Amino acid sequence: MGLFTRDIKTMDDLFVHQLKDIYYAEKRIVGALPQMIEKATSPQLKSAFETHLGETRNHVRRVEQVFQMHGASPETVDCPAIDGIIQEADEVAGEVADKQILDAALIAAAQAVEHYEMTRYGTLIAWAKTLGRDDCASILKANLGEEEAADKKLTQIAESAVNQKAA
Amino acid sequence: MGLFTRDIKTMDDLFVHQLKDIYYAEKRIVGALPQMIEKATSPQLKSAFETHLGETRNHVRRVEQVFQMHGASPETVDCPAIDGIIQEADEVAGEVADKQILDAALIAAAQAVEHYEMTRYGTLIAWAKTLGRDDCASILKANLGEEEAADKKLTQIAESAVNQKAA
Repeated sequence: MGLFTRDIKTMDDLFVHQLKDIYYAEKRIVGALPQMIEKATSPQLKSAFETHLGETRNHVRRVEQVFQMHGASPETVDCPAIDGIIQEADEVAGEVADKQILDAALIAAAQAVEHYEMTRYGTLIAWAKTLGRDDCASILKANLGEEEAADKKLTQIAESAVNQKAA
Repeated sequence: MGLFTRDIKTMDDLFVHQLKDIYYAEKRIVGALPQMIEKATSPQLKSAFETHLGETRNHVRRVEQVFQMHGASPETVDCPAIDGIIQEADEVAGEVADKQILDAALIAAAQAVEHYEMTRYGTLIAWAKTLGRDDCASILKANLGEEEAADKKLTQIAESAVNQKAA
């Protein structure tokens, strides 16, 4: 997209732009999760991240499917939001001295990522419906459902063990 | 926080670090909302942003209260996450040619901000409880409740009018 042009002229353009944004974000998360798996101490947390890495690879494929159904080619746009969320996660992780506390910080970072995806999928689903593309909406809903479940799982892990051990 | 030191040694340090992060974010949002109010076309959307600006100023004060109750001085830390979310909102808004579509894009941007805050307050509340500070948790919950309500209100506005007009 050009810096001095206004390339988004229709709701369809806006939908495709947002799709490119989440496509970038999902790929970025596929790249970031292995490091989070490595840093996690709790076996429960490690396993939750591993499961979510598999799901995230699927999310990339589902987003590619929506591009295809919509007659657009799968492309990314820069997404300073997810870059910022991951940069912040790295910075905080780098400042934590204790492994139990690092787990609590990793959960918080992962939940910030999940919430970013949840809001973007929520928007994409609403826009797909507005555009009469319930078929695209239903595929995007599959991704949203897994992000929500991953977020809830992380809350359970935090409440059951990680925060208590860290305190 | 130093780049090459590990300054977060306890859950308490992590809590205060996260408090500084949301303090920065809330102040940044107080600065960003007036521009969003100006850009919005739908009177309903303008009014929702105006109400939320008032709430956000209160959130800053409540976070300051939690700092005080916790015996820490109100300070900010850089928060690349909220910077990225707001940068992305500005970039997308700058690419939209049509006012109705701009409203849809502004709602999506505002919901990304709300979701960021919701995840951070969710984490802060859990950590406050772990630290035995239910008094801090209850003040943070007041902010969380208003972020959640603002997010729902934006969904209603999008579904009732903005997305339809834009399509």
